[in-house]
Amino acid sequence: MAKAKVVVNKKPLILVTNDDGITSHGIRTLVEEMLHLGEVIIVAPDSPQSGMGHAITIGQALRLDKSDIFKDVTSYECSGTPADCVKLAKSFVLKHRAPDLVVSGINHGGNSSISVLYSGTMSAAIEAAIEETPAIGFSLCDYAMDADVEHCRKFVRIIAAQVLKTGLPRGVALNVNIPAKTKGKIKGIKVCRQARAKWQENFEERFDPHKRRYFWMNGSFINLDKGEDTDEWALQNNYISVVPCHFDMTSHHSLPLINKEWDIL
Amino acid sequence: MAKAKVVVNKKPLILVTNDDGITSHGIRTLVEEMLHLGEVIIVAPDSPQSGMGHAITIGQALRLDKSDIFKDVTSYECSGTPADCVKLAKSFVLKHRAPDLVVSGINHGGNSSISVLYSGTMSAAIEAAIEETPAIGFSLCDYAMDADVEHCRKFVRIIAAQVLKTGLPRGVALNVNIPAKTKGKIKGIKVCRQARAKWQENFEERFDPHKRRYFWMNGSFINLDKGEDTDEWALQNNYISVVPCHFDMTSHHSLPLINKEWDIL
Repeated sequence: MAKAKVVVNKKPLILVTNDDGITSHGIRTLVEEMLHLGEVIIVAPDSPQSGMGHAITIGQALRLDKSDIFKDVTSYECSGTPADCVKLAKSFVLKHRAPDLVVSGINHGGNSSISVLYSGTMSAAIEAAIEETPAIGFSLCDYAMDADVEHCRKFVRIIAAQVLKTGLPRGVALNVNIPAKTKGKIKGIKVCRQARAKWQENFEERFDPHKRRYFWMNGSFINLDKGEDTDEWALQNNYISVVPCHFDMTSHHSLPLINKEWDIL
Repeated sequence: MAKAKVVVNKKPLILVTNDDGITSHGIRTLVEEMLHLGEVIIVAPDSPQSGMGHAITIGQALRLDKSDIFKDVTSYECSGTPADCVKLAKSFVLKHRAPDLVVSGINHGGNSSISVLYSGTMSAAIEAAIEETPAIGFSLCDYAMDADVEHCRKFVRIIAAQVLKTGLPRGVALNVNIPAKTKGKIKGIKVCRQARAKWQENFEERFDPHKRRYFWMNGSFINLDKGEDTDEWALQNNYISVVPCHFDMTSHHSLPLINKEWDIL
């Protein structure tokens, strides 16, 4: 098992970020739990960045300022995306010292199956995986900004501790989704594949006071996958889902098919 | 070979988008070539969206307005990201009639290997692949906004024609990168895997007139992959690279490893 680095005999350095912004309830909970496991540094967006996918800021300047929101924990707020935060943390804040673990979240809202592509939370984790740093994105399947995150604490801590102990395959970040408190007692943790699913958008058309049209994106989630080894199955059955994610987008099985079929090669 | 739909005996409907914005030189070239192959509809960003990854707009309203930039071609400009454009095109402009092909680009700048994650051009193509519509993102490995794109025409057209003829495996979008004109004669087209690579950021620190610090993201590309079956190898050897991309981020080989090693399951 090719491993990203595993920490032995020293206090691990844990970088914490998120996509809901540095003032969110979810990141505070995550920071509190990570302080039990190591030294914590926070570099998080100064405003909500939900749905930012793997966006980075290349056409505008970036701000990075010290924050005093967290007492006794070095923290910075950044005007950019979650991926920007990880890049700036690595290059500027940590001066290219690699953290032992990057955690992102706890996101207010689920990021299972296809939502991983749109997720700022997970893009931060994937960005760390590109740097071969073990990384975890934590999301709570409850979109309310005041959602109860207390039941997440125990699981967030044991999953992070497990990753600090055993490492992760090189270039892998975990997409961890936790059922809402309202769903009742969590049955356990399942390692899963990403379910095949999509969002069916339903744009709501409105008109502004100047009679100019605008739209709100809205939609419903459609699970197209009946497998019992998926994150959707796990969540529906009140398990925490853990999907190991990589950043190789190649559809490897398509390579021989296209090579055989195309007459322009 | 499970196929997304293949067009027979009718004029195919081709949706064109990009990430450099509707006024860019690259999209104009792409539209001109697609008009040889079918009926064209354009839904493109009203401003540059480079580096937007798979971002979508969920916290703000979206504008979508008819544009008259293209004569005799139905076109819309959208305030959102490339992924938003594809979603709005599907739901609102095409009223859920699926196009036969979605093409994105021609991007001013390469999107090979790891850049596929940050690419707005490719997120539009991937968004179409989620809907099981054959899709291609075209990028020119030249960042100049006035780069010569004339040598791309022939290849853009034959690759799109090939996809219209033979379809693509279901859920696959092609990441096509074309060497810069200045590199000389193109040797051909290679179907490749995504090279293992990363960007090494070098943030440039500056101070504004109020003495407040800001940063510009800058960086250099590092190819970590010596394989001769990669997009980077193809481009370095003056071939056009074609990487079939999917949207399953699961690191499948990690599933048994984690299941075996973790003691918290």
